[in-house]
Amino acid sequence: MQYYHVDYAKLHEFCVHVFQGYGFTEEESNQITDVLLDADLSGIESHGIQRLIRYHKEITGGLVKLDAKPEVVFETPLSAVIEGNDAMGQLLGVQAMQKAIDKAKEHGFGMVTVRNSNHYGIAGYYTKMAANQGLMGMSMTNTEAIMVPTFGRQAMLGTNPIAFAMPADPIPYVFDAATTVVPRGKLEVYVKRGNGLPIGWALDEKGHDSSDPDRVLTNIINKTGGGILPLGGSGELTSGYKGYGFAMLCEIATAILSGGTTSNYIYKTPGRANIAH
Amino acid sequence: MQYYHVDYAKLHEFCVHVFQGYGFTEEESNQITDVLLDADLSGIESHGIQRLIRYHKEITGGLVKLDAKPEVVFETPLSAVIEGNDAMGQLLGVQAMQKAIDKAKEHGFGMVTVRNSNHYGIAGYYTKMAANQGLMGMSMTNTEAIMVPTFGRQAMLGTNPIAFAMPADPIPYVFDAATTVVPRGKLEVYVKRGNGLPIGWALDEKGHDSSDPDRVLTNIINKTGGGILPLGGSGELTSGYKGYGFAMLCEIATAILSGGTTSNYIYKTPGRANIAH
Repeated sequence: MQYYHVDYAKLHEFCVHVFQGYGFTEEESNQITDVLLDADLSGIESHGIQRLIRYHKEITGGLVKLDAKPEVVFETPLSAVIEGNDAMGQLLGVQAMQKAIDKAKEHGFGMVTVRNSNHYGIAGYYTKMAANQGLMGMSMTNTEAIMVPTFGRQAMLGTNPIAFAMPADPIPYVFDAATTVVPRGKLEVYVKRGNGLPIGWALDEKGHDSSDPDRVLTNIINKTGGGILPLGGSGELTSGYKGYGFAMLCEIATAILSGGTTSNYIYKTPGRANIAH
Repeated sequence: MQYYHVDYAKLHEFCVHVFQGYGFTEEESNQITDVLLDADLSGIESHGIQRLIRYHKEITGGLVKLDAKPEVVFETPLSAVIEGNDAMGQLLGVQAMQKAIDKAKEHGFGMVTVRNSNHYGIAGYYTKMAANQGLMGMSMTNTEAIMVPTFGRQAMLGTNPIAFAMPADPIPYVFDAATTVVPRGKLEVYVKRGNGLPIGWALDEKGHDSSDPDRVLTNIINKTGGGILPLGGSGELTSGYKGYGFAMLCEIATAILSGGTTSNYIYKTPGRANIAH
């Protein structure tokens, strides 16, 4: 693996130009880029600049709607539901978290969910928005199904990350983790290196432990069964019921509360996701 | 292992008499017993009737104060902090959750934390109180330190369970899990059976993987280092940073927000704990 030093300001400017090239406004392009590059600055390379490839496909393929107008479809002093209308995930993520922050500043608590969003980058970015404004923040998103529930053999839940931040001096506490043992990108790294997977990470299409990253990835892509185990699993017999439970918490907060799409249906409509802050 | 069938009503009556015998009122004794036996009914035997032995020691030893008068020391429309004054954990747990429920019913959200409580039984009981009243509920408690943080070798955090419930028909969704790989009771079972621990559960006093449940338990009791790994660990090198993160979330919600005692100080004053609903 080779690393290159790239100047942050120059990379930021480059990304803003790329997003403006698709038709996003300068403000939108800056918002998307801020989320994107915060991942690289935080050492989460899987969700940083390299995601431009995925976003390029989703934007040019029409999955992300450039002219989407998000609508607030339900609102109380403490809560809101936003219909995302397939807008760019980062724009929805920032809008929804700022709305939750505004509610919390006025009333002491705010919760905003978004349905029909797209990939919104790292969940931790949004919790840091709250921490930077003196508040505790949580953020979650469901994703395309990749997690095989305990005792199951078909992916039904997403990587379903849960993030949490608390303001602190000099550095806020920030936690951001997928509720699967590992994300999909980790399997791709194992394929590239030609290494076998540790037992306890993934199941094959029959629901048995698999150490073959290529087979598991192919099954995930072709939706032919199997997938990654929930956090806390150590093999098919004790397959991570705690991670499964946390993933369900995420599913309820994001898909059920927003009236959106559960991960196993995102499975059929790749790219759609739901957000809860 | 032998099992006996015991009539629930008779066991309930027995427990109520026991608690009345210590000096609790009939209403208090019923509240404590409801929480205690719900654990057995839910299959969580470690937290059920067998805990009478621990409670007997804590009540007769003076750790639990029979005449404690809990005080609300901070309150907003959406939140409150209760000073528990070392009252029985179940009584504080029920009082605090009902206060959170009342706030949520009136305003849409409620959060109540308790400092200087005692062992409050299963966290899931309190989330079911919310679900039974048509609300989503969360409950957490920190505990005496037993969890060795990632890359650490001394227990600094408790089992720090997180519970969550959502009303659903016919059965609510209820999740309740320690953020350690296993609770302390599981190690006791391994000692009794003479079995070795799987690698990834516990560390010895030097911070290395240990398969010796007796050694780990002795170290925990004598506070001589080592302990149980956080959820998601598979050995000392990848020692459960996700479980560590969730345990910190619990610590912040219970000890920091209430102005109470963090797990590593409960370590020095056994029995004290803090609650967040």
